[in-house]
Parts: sequence; structure tokens; C-alpha cells
Amino acid sequence: MVWLQKLFTKTDNDNILSDKTDERDWLNLDPQVFGRSKIFFSTNQSIDLYELEELCDSVGWARRPLRKVKKALDHSYLVASAWEVRGAKTSLIGFARATSDHAFNATIWDVVIHPRFQSKGLGKAFMKYVIRKLRKDDISNVTLFADAHVVEFYQRLGFIPDPEGIRGMFYYPE
Amino acid sequence: MVWLQKLFTKTDNDNILSDKTDERDWLNLDPQVFGRSKIFFSTNQSIDLYELEELCDSVGWARRPLRKVKKALDHSYLVASAWEVRGAKTSLIGFARATSDHAFNATIWDVVIHPRFQSKGLGKAFMKYVIRKLRKDDISNVTLFADAHVVEFYQRLGFIPDPEGIRGMFYYPE
Ligand SMILES: CC(C)(COP(=O)(O)OP(=O)(O)OC[C@H]1O[C@@H](n2cnc3c(N)ncnc32)[C@H](O)[C@@H]1OP(=O)(O)O)[C@@H](O)C(=O)NCCC(=O)NCCS
Ligand SMILES: CC(C)(COP(=O)(O)OP(=O)(O)OC[C@H]1O[C@@H](n2cnc3c(N)ncnc32)[C@H](O)[C@@H]1OP(=O)(O)O)[C@@H](O)C(=O)NCCC(=O)NCCS
Repeated sequence: MVWLQKLFTKTDNDNILSDKTDERDWLNLDPQVFGRSKIFFSTNQSIDLYELEELCDSVGWARRPLRKVKKALDHSYLVASAWEVRGAKTSLIGFARATSDHAFNATIWDVVIHPRFQSKGLGKAFMKYVIRKLRKDDISNVTLFADAHVVEFYQRLGFIPDPEGIRGMFYYPE
Repeated sequence: MVWLQKLFTKTDNDNILSDKTDERDWLNLDPQVFGRSKIFFSTNQSIDLYELEELCDSVGWARRPLRKVKKALDHSYLVASAWEVRGAKTSLIGFARATSDHAFNATIWDVVIHPRFQSKGLGKAFMKYVIRKLRKDDISNVTLFADAHVVEFYQRLGFIPDPEGIRGMFYYPE
């Protein structure tokens, strides 16, 4: 897969779909793995909620009311997305977002790479991109709650479970 | 200490320090424990950053740049405070805040009760107040990262560590 040489190169793209300034971080891909697909990451690409729902469906996540998803995205500090460009078609293939107080803490939620693109090193590169964005903003503490089966995935990226005995806890009303 | 009968009664207070609408949730206190002190909780009381710093000092937390603290408070979804009123003096004796996406997830940070008021049931009542506020806003998932020595404190409130193997993780850059 070997393909990370020049990750995060800024390129000027002229075809802007979103009304926001469009920054696309194009990946250097191994054509043997990715064929004619091009892939970029972004933190300001407009996201179609139906496309996001399909992506979440593809990994078996429970459906959530779109109105609430929209609210959550609007109030996330960072909304990161990964896109495949193939000919004229641009498809959402990865997603992650973070809540934050803009100063001390950020918490990453809803990390997903489409099954068709998993196990190719994309998840790792995408998380590195997300972390870079958060650290660039001088946020001291980047945290997340990892499902049991992905603890190792995050450990390889430099996340430590329960550091100094700190425990992640969830409220369950009786 | 027995003092929770009528917690969260709304009262109209005329002396408004803050420019926001001022809601004070007064506690029913046992005078044998609290003497002539009155105590209320609030989520919209203006907080003096120096007073907050003193409170954090009192439990031995590391100092943080006030500019950053202000930013974090401004971008917290919920800022809750506990106050002692004694005669004409109103003092900050408890604090907690939460980040949130306003829809699915909230994460509680910086929970503290002044040592002079600890072990009287205040921390428990204050956390119940914070949880009530978050749940009232229809936030599904209330989370936190608990220091090792307070895991039990949160467990008694209904928080579960590592539910279904979910692990709290922190990023440590090499
Ligand atoms: C978890 C997920 C984002 C990983 O993305 P990916 O593109 O498949 O991961 P990568 O190919 O970049 O793998 C990076 C490294 O982690 C390892 N890894 C990947 N998935 C793993 C897993 N589930 N458990 C343990 N290790 C894993 C890979 O072997 C690889 O190791 P290497 O660096 O030694 O080669 C993706 O599998 C996914 O979307 N899963 C479903 C949704 C989900 O569970 N999200 C997490 C919710 S908390
Ligand atoms: C943790 C803290 C908020 C608790 O507040 P408090 O007012 O002392 O707690 P309470 O008196 O309401 O105690 C509520 C219950 O929790 C228990 N408890 C209190 N502190 C505890 C602790 N550190 N470990 C285990 N149990 C604890 C009490 O025994 C009591 O049990 P009960 O309901 O069976 O009577 C307070 O001690 C504090 O500010 N500590 C320093 C800062 C800190 O560590 N914050 C947490 C960072 S994650």
C-alpha cells in the first residue's frame, strides 16, 4: 500500500462543490492498491447527510435521526471526511468528528472508513490527519472512547487506554 | 447531612450579579452540618476566573492560563457552579463543565467541590444536578474520564466504567 510520502500536500482545486473555502489534502496512493481512484481528506467539505447515513450503514451502525445528526455536526469542533474521486464522481468513504472546548480537551467520535477501503492504511492516515488538525489548534488533550475491537487500532496511533488509571465512564440511568 | 428533600426548587432572586437570566437552585441544607450557610447551584452564574483558579488550587490542580480557561468556558456546552451564600458574601465552592455536540454526546470535565465542603453529600447532589441538566436537553450519552480515585464516586451516581469493553483513551504524542 506504501503511499504516504507526500501526505498533506496542499493543492489548489478549482471545482468547488462546497460554499466554504475548500481544502483538499490529497493522498499519494499506490495504484496497485487503489487503481484509478484518487483520495483526499478534508475538514471543510460539505457533507450530504444521506451519504453519511449510508457510510454508517455500511459498517452496521444504528440509524440516527438526520435532524439530530445535523445538529451534532453543526456543534462539532472538527468534522473530517475522506473522499474517493473516480472520474467525475466524488464519494464519501470516511468520516470522523470531534467535540471540544477549543482549548484543553477534544474528544473524537464516529470514526469510520467504508469497508471497501478498510485494511489499506487509510484509517491510520485519516486518524493522523484528525490528530494533526486538533494539535495544530493547540488543544492539549485529545481523547476518545474506543470500542473493544478497535483499542489496538488506536494504540498503534499513540493513544493509551486508561492512562494513570483514568477510566472512561458512561452514565446509565436506572 | 440529610438535606435533599426539596432540591431544585426554583426561586426568584432579585439581586442579579450576572447579566444573564439568573436561575439559582437552592439546596435544603441540614443546619447542623452547614450552619448559617446557604448553598445554590446554577448553570448561568457569571464566574470570576480568579475565583475559579482559587477553587482549583484548593484541590491541588495545576494552574492553567486564564485566557485558555476563558476560551474553554466560552466553548463548553454546560458550565455549572455551586455557591455558598453567607450574609452578604457569595463564594464559588463547586464547579463542573461539559463539552457536547448538543445532540448525542456530552463529556463532563473539571468536577470539583472545595475541600471545606467535601464529604457532606454536595458532590453527589451537584453531579445529579449536572446530569439532570444534560438529560433534560435530550443528550443521549453522558460520559466522563474519571481519575482513578474518583471512579467509585461516579459509580455510585450511575456511571459505569468501560461499558461493553469501551475504553477511554488519551493521545500521547511521542
Ligand atoms: C477501525 C477502522 C476505522 C480502521 O480503518 P482501516 O482503514 O481499516 O485501518 P488501517 O488499514 O489504516 O489499519 C491501521 C493499522 O491498524 C490495524 N487495525 C485496523 N483495524 C483494526 C482493528 N479493528 N483492530 C486492531 N487493529 C486494527 C491494522 O492492522 C493496521 O496495522 P499496521 O499499522 O501495523 O499495518 C475501520 O476498520 C472501521 O471503520 N471500522 C468500522 C467502524 C468502527 O468500528 N469504528 C470505530 C468505532 S470506536
Ligand atoms: C470528587 C468530589 C467532587 C466529591 O465531592 P464530595 O462533595 O466530597 O462527595 P460527596 O460527599 O457528595 O460523596 C458522595 C458519595 O461518594 C463517596 N465519595 C466521595 N468522594 C469519593 C472518592 N474520592 N472515592 C470514592 N467515593 C467517594 C462518598 O462516600 C459518598 O458516598 P455515599 O453516597 O454512599 O454517602 C470531591 O471530593 C473533589 O472535588 N475532589 C477533588 C477533585 C477531584 O478529584 N475531582 C474529580 C476529577 S475526575
